[in-house]
Amino acid sequence: MNRKAAIVGGGVIGGGWAARFLLNGWDVSVADPDPEAARKIDAVLDRARRMLPMLYERAMPGEGRLTITDDLEGAVDGAAWVQESVPERIEIKRAVFSRIAAAVAPGVPVGSSTSGYKPSDLAEGLGAPGAQVMVAHPFVPVYLLPLVEVVGHPGSDPAVLDQAETVLRAIGMAPLRIRAEIDAHVADRFLEGVWREALWLVRDGIATTEEIDDAIRLGFGLRWAQMGLFETYRLGGGEGGMAQFVAQFAPALEWPWSRLTDVPTLDAELSAKIASQSDAQSGHLDPDQLARLRDDNLVSILRALKARGSAAGAVLATHEESLPDPATAEQAEGAPLITLERTVPIDWTDYNGHMNESRYGQVFSDAADGVMRRIGADAAYITDGLSYFTADIRIRFLAELHAGARIRVESQVLEGKGKKLRLFHRLLDAEGAEAATAEQFLLHVSLETRRSCVPREDVAARLEALAAAHAQLLAPDPAARLP
Amino acid sequence: MNRKAAIVGGGVIGGGWAARFLLNGWDVSVADPDPEAARKIDAVLDRARRMLPMLYERAMPGEGRLTITDDLEGAVDGAAWVQESVPERIEIKRAVFSRIAAAVAPGVPVGSSTSGYKPSDLAEGLGAPGAQVMVAHPFVPVYLLPLVEVVGHPGSDPAVLDQAETVLRAIGMAPLRIRAEIDAHVADRFLEGVWREALWLVRDGIATTEEIDDAIRLGFGLRWAQMGLFETYRLGGGEGGMAQFVAQFAPALEWPWSRLTDVPTLDAELSAKIASQSDAQSGHLDPDQLARLRDDNLVSILRALKARGSAAGAVLATHEESLPDPATAEQAEGAPLITLERTVPIDWTDYNGHMNESRYGQVFSDAADGVMRRIGADAAYITDGLSYFTADIRIRFLAELHAGARIRVESQVLEGKGKKLRLFHRLLDAEGAEAATAEQFLLHVSLETRRSCVPREDVAARLEALAAAHAQLLAPDPAARLP
Repeated sequence: MNRKAAIVGGGVIGGGWAARFLLNGWDVSVADPDPEAARKIDAVLDRARRMLPMLYERAMPGEGRLTITDDLEGAVDGAAWVQESVPERIEIKRAVFSRIAAAVAPGVPVGSSTSGYKPSDLAEGLGAPGAQVMVAHPFVPVYLLPLVEVVGHPGSDPAVLDQAETVLRAIGMAPLRIRAEIDAHVADRFLEGVWREALWLVRDGIATTEEIDDAIRLGFGLRWAQMGLFETYRLGGGEGGMAQFVAQFAPALEWPWSRLTDVPTLDAELSAKIASQSDAQSGHLDPDQLARLRDDNLVSILRALKARGSAAGAVLATHEESLPDPATAEQAEGAPLITLERTVPIDWTDYNGHMNESRYGQVFSDAADGVMRRIGADAAYITDGLSYFTADIRIRFLAELHAGARIRVESQVLEGKGKKLRLFHRLLDAEGAEAATAEQFLLHVSLETRRSCVPREDVAARLEALAAAHAQLLAPDPAARLP
Repeated sequence: MNRKAAIVGGGVIGGGWAARFLLNGWDVSVADPDPEAARKIDAVLDRARRMLPMLYERAMPGEGRLTITDDLEGAVDGAAWVQESVPERIEIKRAVFSRIAAAVAPGVPVGSSTSGYKPSDLAEGLGAPGAQVMVAHPFVPVYLLPLVEVVGHPGSDPAVLDQAETVLRAIGMAPLRIRAEIDAHVADRFLEGVWREALWLVRDGIATTEEIDDAIRLGFGLRWAQMGLFETYRLGGGEGGMAQFVAQFAPALEWPWSRLTDVPTLDAELSAKIASQSDAQSGHLDPDQLARLRDDNLVSILRALKARGSAAGAVLATHEESLPDPATAEQAEGAPLITLERTVPIDWTDYNGHMNESRYGQVFSDAADGVMRRIGADAAYITDGLSYFTADIRIRFLAELHAGARIRVESQVLEGKGKKLRLFHRLLDAEGAEAATAEQFLLHVSLETRRSCVPREDVAARLEALAAAHAQLLAPDPAARLP
């Protein structure tokens, strides 16, 4: 197969398609008469080049060749995929499709990015090439979100639809074959329902746009990112699964809850259909396994958002500030400093079923942050442009740790003078047994010059006092030290 | 404030509330006459005890004391928070609220978990304590999801509503004050709209429950987990923001898209209201910053799901398998093995604006996995119960790396005989400059006994051959070695 894609219509959607193909090694020809097309596509491409490769633990292939042209027929010539993303007006789409039909080779999938039209609306009057036309509806940002709704029409060639799935998977996307064409396909009908309800709520002064966003992203949005609607609700049915949930929920359809007044009847037939489809989907997991799956995913997503300080992650970060910080709490004199106390989260474990070795390094990095806070090299200090960077570390791994384990770190200052900070850490499990030790050598740096420099006087003084106190402690085992 | 909460009604919701309070150090008295109550609450608590502490980088406080009783008045006595979570039938709720009203102290918030009723329906006829009654509607799993819709009624005491927000924040939740009471508040109206549309789609054979879930979780569900509806759409308006998006979208409300036929008019007044609320919410970010925020969040969420192999993460994992693995590719003889080639993702960076030191450890851990795959100690080998565990590592940090940087690792086998594997890694940036080196000592282990043992014969043979070939290479700088 010739790995060339023709993207008809630039802009945010067309640019996203171009990025998907290019970054997966395809050549791309974008047909767009807009003189601004190159600038618009470049903007999307720049973002995609930065973000898409971050999703993978492997390198992506070399980028394909990009051409931008006003010659639609030339772009389509020799392409193994044609994607239309022109404005959402039927007369514009029809004009474009008749030109594509005249230029496209037999058997090549011709996708439309339309969010509203049915494929038969687009294939009408095209003759044989109409059998190659389908909806291939992506979601912004196209270069990151995997979903593509693939919708055929009664005249579609099934082999071309199959080929479309193959190509979409090859560029990292998830084709979802829709069983029958309807206006707006599937996902956008949900979006439209929520949008309409949201408009009522804003109009009636029940909630502002920001409050509505919070009502979504701090609650069910987190469930929908990983399970969607039915698998989440299945959990609500407990041992009885979806059948029980449907039975519980059916009366609510009679309630005057929303403005959405055309309500399907949840009769025995529909209830049975839902229950059996849900069994086929999730029946291999018992309620406990399903809840575990949900919770593991939620913890992982929430922690990802916390690291970014965004949405539900900002709520967590604020609450975390209210939890005691051992590193700055009062502690016994003449003992190593407790710099960290926490639980091993699920996202720290690996295929061996235990805490990944890199997370031992994370724990010691966080313990060094604890020493820094203790001596006043805190968040404000870092904002002021000063910090410590690790230059050298040796970690000895003594025992496995598993998700849910409560751990703590005791840290001893071995050297703390001028630019130098040398620490010895012991990672202890809940019973106080050593799971690892580390000797870590750090240098004080200016975040402006990125070079080493001496700490602020008060920080240096506190560090020297701590080093003097810790000099009284037992020295670490020489076999555990850096050379 | 007395840190005691009364939870009236056990079950999944009541148990989730109990867990939130207990794990944040509150004493909890659950009033439930069900003889199965203790078992049901324990099931929720067990999950919560495992999952909730994983959200934080600090330890949570000591757990409070849990009492389960059929004495509702005794549970409410002395409580600083009362939460009702009994079945969703108004006569049951009213009976419970009149008993709570007789026992609760003045000024104590009395929340209802109802997803449908208005607070005035619940406060009716309670006299003075009715001013303390509000909706405090959480989302399952209550012990993980932060959102609580807080809804007062015309007779509410504003001071009690404020106190409710304070308590909810103290237990790590995000109270969302709803401006006026309506049936089903805000979030459940959206859920209900999507549920009704989904029922039509299943009934009409357009999509199955699993396809509907995929249509959500592989696309807009990922956007909603972090931005919600309006902030996502604002991006669709580009430089023109929400005003432009609304103008574009208004005609679609006339389309026969969904079964949701009662449609608000997007007139000038409503359009202006939405645009100005959206400006207040997100106007401090220009479209480029907003897109960056969205993309950083999406990459972080998608990577979190990839690590779990779930939903959109499973799509990524499959695609990743199709990308070349340098460790198993043909490579030049007599050179160090290229074990890893990748991009530094956004979730690997820290407050210093560079790749966190622990991720250098991650890179070397992954490089060791590359050596393992090279010698046949691959995923199947691990499934068979054999693996290598790192026992000792020394990492020297030579240069900073930033998100988006393309990196590779070259690995040299220093020792590979019997149970022992000693590697020397060089982490190189895109220009080939050393960013770090590591000497890593691993032991071959049985995953059954968790003790060291010799590798399978074919793996041992491949390792010895590789070690022999690498013995010809330049030895690493002794100053970079383990002691």
